[in-house]
Amino acid sequence: MRRIFCTTPIILLILFLLSLRQAAAQIDPLLSWNDGPTKQRILKFVDEVTKENGPNYVPPGECVAIFDTDGALWPERPLPVEFYFVIHRLRQLAPKNPQWRKTRPTKVLFEKDPKALMTLSQQDMEKLRLRAYAGMVQEDFRHEVQKWMATWQHPKFKVGVVGLYYEPMRELIEYLRGNGFKTFIATGGSSDFVRAVSEPLYGVPFDQVVGTEIGLRYKVIGGKSFVARDPKVTSFESGPLKPVNIERHIGRRPLMAVGNGKDDMEMLAYTSDRHRMSLCLVISHDDAEREFDYPVDEVLRAAQERGWLVVSIKRDWKSIFPR
Amino acid sequence: MRRIFCTTPIILLILFLLSLRQAAAQIDPLLSWNDGPTKQRILKFVDEVTKENGPNYVPPGECVAIFDTDGALWPERPLPVEFYFVIHRLRQLAPKNPQWRKTRPTKVLFEKDPKALMTLSQQDMEKLRLRAYAGMVQEDFRHEVQKWMATWQHPKFKVGVVGLYYEPMRELIEYLRGNGFKTFIATGGSSDFVRAVSEPLYGVPFDQVVGTEIGLRYKVIGGKSFVARDPKVTSFESGPLKPVNIERHIGRRPLMAVGNGKDDMEMLAYTSDRHRMSLCLVISHDDAEREFDYPVDEVLRAAQERGWLVVSIKRDWKSIFPR
Repeated sequence: MRRIFCTTPIILLILFLLSLRQAAAQIDPLLSWNDGPTKQRILKFVDEVTKENGPNYVPPGECVAIFDTDGALWPERPLPVEFYFVIHRLRQLAPKNPQWRKTRPTKVLFEKDPKALMTLSQQDMEKLRLRAYAGMVQEDFRHEVQKWMATWQHPKFKVGVVGLYYEPMRELIEYLRGNGFKTFIATGGSSDFVRAVSEPLYGVPFDQVVGTEIGLRYKVIGGKSFVARDPKVTSFESGPLKPVNIERHIGRRPLMAVGNGKDDMEMLAYTSDRHRMSLCLVISHDDAEREFDYPVDEVLRAAQERGWLVVSIKRDWKSIFPR
Repeated sequence: MRRIFCTTPIILLILFLLSLRQAAAQIDPLLSWNDGPTKQRILKFVDEVTKENGPNYVPPGECVAIFDTDGALWPERPLPVEFYFVIHRLRQLAPKNPQWRKTRPTKVLFEKDPKALMTLSQQDMEKLRLRAYAGMVQEDFRHEVQKWMATWQHPKFKVGVVGLYYEPMRELIEYLRGNGFKTFIATGGSSDFVRAVSEPLYGVPFDQVVGTEIGLRYKVIGGKSFVARDPKVTSFESGPLKPVNIERHIGRRPLMAVGNGKDDMEMLAYTSDRHRMSLCLVISHDDAEREFDYPVDEVLRAAQERGWLVVSIKRDWKSIFPR
């Protein structure tokens, strides 16, 4: 009896605090964003395109918003998240492939100094990714990713994937969806890797992930049909292939796009060349203290010229990661 | 005053009949299907996979249903619908390409006897499709398809696309969606052609159409970015490429699939090899009087062996087209 009396006020307090949080979210859907011109421009844009009978109204079916992943939905430094899985997988396969310890690029994975990994070029990383994924059938691949994600931690932030996403971006995606937008992920990562997190972290279903395509092949094993992964990339989702793959997969020009790197520039251009209103966001990594500091000048210059909205992590985000 | 008295009972009668129809649809979601084992098996399947806490329950996110188009959602005889658009487009372009009248396969399009078209092989038809679509940017292509669809009529049924779809299949798609299924189209047709009808006819949005991929290229014209069509097929959505493209686009094994031809067999096998319950439907064209009669023996044999459900148009469909 006494115990109930003790806990009741605590429960009530928690419920009260939760209701406050919910009420605040109803008033402000972008709670983790600082007030200022960036947040105001996003809110105004969504308001304008969703106002029926307004001059800039866009029917819900055409409200397509595309998000890059690495550097736009979660950090891409020191290495893209997927790459840690590639390393894990190659180390797992290493005992059966002793020659890997002798030649580059695989050799680098077995060096003691973690900085050795930073010497890998983009091309090296692609080669490693293909080697890590070859031969597995889709079900096994998905299973391996899930297993790895359950224990992996980011080397700087010491959290797993569930603590690593950008909370302001999750809020933005949810806010857009609440306003009738269909939200997609267009990522240089492998579709099937990103699909492991797209729904739980961002509410984006499997089929709304447009990623780099690993070669796939239909295969009958013991009388049962499978789709297996081939050691080749059929369409590396980067640069000009982003708008191409968006057209393939979605079949319309986006109303909104979010990117951060050079390889997002064509996607952003394709969005801002829409016949009417559009919104392009460029995430600028300028916060060494809370995240990383490596703004991409070329993208910032294009943003200036074309009127893309620059989101400064330092200035615009009250908090970065979920609490 | 007298006029009101005259029309009121008629209006009331119409409202009464409409309400009857609506009530019937609520009781029977598959109104255009004859009662019998086929209809019963479909209803029972949906009932089982959607019954929470039941032994065969499947969470909504995994309830993926895939539909072939030609011969499964609308007729594919005498020629697939898209091919009439290809012919129209090539004839439009002919004045600028006088050599087309001299060589096969284009020559055939200009012969007076409509039966000449039937001499074209599958390969010829692919060549023609590529030639018809080359060079256009996506926006222009979509516009041309819409314009053509507004006036085209099917040579046998004398209706446009809005009167040509299979009403029983539209009901089935709607019924599945009402039960939490996500419905996709996997078609040998070009994605962007089928997208012109997927939403208005079947309620399937653009991005849930997985079709044959025409080569696409990012292109800047007069400072503005476009995606243009290349004269090549990058992935012809047929046979073993259907499950491959389903994995690419959706990233999971379907729970249900509907096909009719030999090129659907791998997709059906991939679905019925799901680790647990699944449902595969094979549409059998056996009704010369109301549609066409050309059942595909090879698919029917596989259906028999693997327990796929054969839908006989003659026996199972009360009506075929919308009224």
